[in-house]
Amino acid sequence: MHFTRKADADWNGGIMDGKGTVKLGSGAFEGAYSFQSRFGDDTKATNPEELIAAAHAGCYTMALSGNLGKAGYAPKNIHTTANVKIEKQGDGFVIPNIDLQTTADVDGISDEEFQQIAEKTKETCPVSQVLSGAEISLKAELKRASAAQVVNLEMNLAKRILPS
Amino acid sequence: MHFTRKADADWNGGIMDGKGTVKLGSGAFEGAYSFQSRFGDDTKATNPEELIAAAHAGCYTMALSGNLGKAGYAPKNIHTTANVKIEKQGDGFVIPNIDLQTTADVDGISDEEFQQIAEKTKETCPVSQVLSGAEISLKAELKRASAAQVVNLEMNLAKRILPS
Repeated sequence: MHFTRKADADWNGGIMDGKGTVKLGSGAFEGAYSFQSRFGDDTKATNPEELIAAAHAGCYTMALSGNLGKAGYAPKNIHTTANVKIEKQGDGFVIPNIDLQTTADVDGISDEEFQQIAEKTKETCPVSQVLSGAEISLKAELKRASAAQVVNLEMNLAKRILPS
Repeated sequence: MHFTRKADADWNGGIMDGKGTVKLGSGAFEGAYSFQSRFGDDTKATNPEELIAAAHAGCYTMALSGNLGKAGYAPKNIHTTANVKIEKQGDGFVIPNIDLQTTADVDGISDEEFQQIAEKTKETCPVSQVLSGAEISLKAELKRASAAQVVNLEMNLAKRILPS
């Protein structure tokens, strides 16, 4: 079983003064990009690095939901930020690091098991694997009920089990 | 000199029945994705593979403009399609191949030199390098004036240089 997904890029002119567009095959997004939106001060148009970040965050988050499910847990919410660094090296640019930061709201799992599953997902998700030219780091956090929520839960429990 | 670009993904629920969103750091795009838009029949929402395709097509096209410029040519237009394949292997999925197809409208360059620059750009553009987990293939085509356009150009030239 396989799927082939596509996108198009179009560029008019030279690298510095030219203008580009990228368009996703699904049609969900089409937008401008330029030298200035990649290496300059246009922060509103897109650039290839944030598209990689979206692919990686998207794949990792979905895969973490899948791996938590396989281990018997039902994740409520997972939120991941991917940071993709591009830097000048010699004549050109390279993407040396990608940093993933994920927070998951999952009942009943120990932090130790959660960290194991989060780390395994970083190693095995298809987008992590294809991005093997970068060093990928992960910070994973299990969202815990706040102290106030715990107090409320305990008070509700006490009301139910104590004689009134 | 370096830049860090980011994107976020959010997922509610399990891998099959859950729903996700991805959001680019620039704000240029925020949209839904799901198991069905990645491995199923929802062709309207996005998926990680077409985001990789957009990053790769975008980087390659901009870099090809840059490398043609360095070689002394002024590209008018470059259009690139990136096809990203994902397939089931064993228990999981992998992205084994990315296929780039580019067409460039550039005056004064030989096809041989164009092919050399296009191939070198495939090897050296930052997104090609970070995607080293996939085999990347390239088909590059130099757009030539059509026969009808050549006839018109020659007729115009003849009108100007022949005595009327």
